[in-house]
Amino acid sequence: MVKKISLLGATGSIGLQTVDILKENPEHFRLTAFSTGRNMEKTRELIQQFKPEAVSVLDKDDAHSLQAEFPAVRFYYGQDGLVEIAAHSDSEVLLNSVLGSVGLGPTMEAIKAGKQIAIANKETLVTAGHLVMKEARNKGVAILPVDSEHSAIFQSLNGENTKDIEKLILTASGGSFRDKTREELEGVTVEEALNHPNWSMGAKITIDSATMMNKGLEVIEAHYLFDMPYDQIDVLLHRESMIHSMVEFQDTSVIAQLGTPDMRVPIQYALTYPERLPRPHAKRLNLAEIGTLHFEQMDFNRFRALKLAYDAGRAGGTMPTVLNAANEAAVGLFLNGQITFLQIDELIEQALDQHDNISLPDLDTVLRVDAEVRENVREMVK
Amino acid sequence: MVKKISLLGATGSIGLQTVDILKENPEHFRLTAFSTGRNMEKTRELIQQFKPEAVSVLDKDDAHSLQAEFPAVRFYYGQDGLVEIAAHSDSEVLLNSVLGSVGLGPTMEAIKAGKQIAIANKETLVTAGHLVMKEARNKGVAILPVDSEHSAIFQSLNGENTKDIEKLILTASGGSFRDKTREELEGVTVEEALNHPNWSMGAKITIDSATMMNKGLEVIEAHYLFDMPYDQIDVLLHRESMIHSMVEFQDTSVIAQLGTPDMRVPIQYALTYPERLPRPHAKRLNLAEIGTLHFEQMDFNRFRALKLAYDAGRAGGTMPTVLNAANEAAVGLFLNGQITFLQIDELIEQALDQHDNISLPDLDTVLRVDAEVRENVREMVK
Repeated sequence: MVKKISLLGATGSIGLQTVDILKENPEHFRLTAFSTGRNMEKTRELIQQFKPEAVSVLDKDDAHSLQAEFPAVRFYYGQDGLVEIAAHSDSEVLLNSVLGSVGLGPTMEAIKAGKQIAIANKETLVTAGHLVMKEARNKGVAILPVDSEHSAIFQSLNGENTKDIEKLILTASGGSFRDKTREELEGVTVEEALNHPNWSMGAKITIDSATMMNKGLEVIEAHYLFDMPYDQIDVLLHRESMIHSMVEFQDTSVIAQLGTPDMRVPIQYALTYPERLPRPHAKRLNLAEIGTLHFEQMDFNRFRALKLAYDAGRAGGTMPTVLNAANEAAVGLFLNGQITFLQIDELIEQALDQHDNISLPDLDTVLRVDAEVRENVREMVK
Repeated sequence: MVKKISLLGATGSIGLQTVDILKENPEHFRLTAFSTGRNMEKTRELIQQFKPEAVSVLDKDDAHSLQAEFPAVRFYYGQDGLVEIAAHSDSEVLLNSVLGSVGLGPTMEAIKAGKQIAIANKETLVTAGHLVMKEARNKGVAILPVDSEHSAIFQSLNGENTKDIEKLILTASGGSFRDKTREELEGVTVEEALNHPNWSMGAKITIDSATMMNKGLEVIEAHYLFDMPYDQIDVLLHRESMIHSMVEFQDTSVIAQLGTPDMRVPIQYALTYPERLPRPHAKRLNLAEIGTLHFEQMDFNRFRALKLAYDAGRAGGTMPTVLNAANEAAVGLFLNGQITFLQIDELIEQALDQHDNISLPDLDTVLRVDAEVRENVREMVK
């Protein structure tokens, strides 16, 4: 049976790997709609390859020229275009791999339309996880994780009872600066930060890995996805990223999911769950070849962003929204060369300190706070 | 709901740990019948503690004196006694933790009586796995593994489809002589062989660990338990015994079960499956404290017993029976100081070479071959 897929963020890192999987398995998947940004060459290529029903791009002008070129396809643009692709195209599953909280609105609309959500857009869950999960429960819609860590936990929970869980253990590679002290982080460059030891990813998530904010966002994501208190979510440093995450049960058994660092495995699992599909040409895990796996306790002083994330998560309300918006803005400033690496944490902490928490925020409040915080962070460095 | 348990081998290593679990959870389990050997002190203690309906011991005289002492309990003895406890006592689950192929008959009778089987007695599956699993399928009875490796695989398969399995990966600590070359094994003593680095177990299984025959028996056991061809069963050296075994799926995902080396975890799981029960006072896995896990390729020249086991398993028929019987006899001779450590492998190989394989043997044939081979092996060293 062919599953109809819509894909937000088709030309991003996760998007392109999703496209690989769809290409390899035409008998299982059909890409009916997707969104891209400004990469028109790749957009044209994808249209020719998949002959989708609907496509959304960032700019109006691009949408118009594409419409002239491909009259059989419906074109959209901007934020409204994302909602069209996510919620109103003919698909059963939405894979949301856009970057940042811009994915929130389209995800909510897709859930309302009854679509299964494969979520690679962690900011959506961080910024408004309580709203997303509540809507998903109401609609009986599954939220399937795409992040390798959450997919590992999801796979480890297969056939298990939630009541038997002792804790979730997210593994963290430590990112590009894991061997540096906090003092040594003073003055590191954007190029150095973008050099991740294990995974090849987009710029924002690679910086998030270097600050460890990525793991912080994942902790909050795990809290919402698996309905788990923060005291039952641990982070463990594991340099090799071979154990992608684990679940400890009350009988002391630990179930883990392992593999080579290849995002196509969790992406594919989110699309095939509860089945698996062979990946005949993929590199298999060879532990004898790897020889040694290392584990270290997490240092919350060294990785201050992770501490901020736990604090914001525990505080709840709009604090996770503030954390995420301040981080997105600060990482943008760092990538533009406007602030130093260590200022990322500082700006986030400042934004959290300045914010008066609002409990149980609705979607409008979340979106308002999100916009305000971004603006405030940019103001801080002017 | 209280589950009624019968237990074969109550005073062995697995038996006593099973007793610990039953004691800790009187609201979940009731020990209705058990068998012991010659340890009358412990037998009396268990009778007073659990007030079982039936008990079997090794010797007739012991049975008679116990009967006089505890008139409310039915007593049995010898091989027939094992069958009484296994099949005809009032229990839902039989935990079979006797040692050696003596467990086969009682297990078959318990399956016929419709009882669930928690199997710690690997020789039963090795010597006649085709008969046991066939009878279990006919009766719709579950065979639940107690060995830590098979429990790990069983747990890793939770919620998964057998068709998606690429291979089973059994981990092996390497036993007490893992750092010795084959040449250095010449002249090792019984005391040295009994000193296992990770697990505290009975003498026979500790010697089996040192020769690696234990892993060989486990490979054959896994073949039957999970209906998996030998080409899809791998063995990986893993010194720390923290990853108890793994399953690789066709999508390259690997699911593993981990924990501290504590047999009470898999024993309890076999009794509570598909549920789990808390083990509040047990030592939890702390990977940060452990720091490093090591993995090495298995060396079939160094560990010849493992090679013999794969060969016997692949040959099928009565060859696994011969392998197991020759091993039991040879280990007995080694423990008695009658042969050297390296002669264990040699006698097994000789027994396999001398045997004319019989395909699809029935129970009588299996039992006859089993007895003949033991006799032959003892003759070899006279």
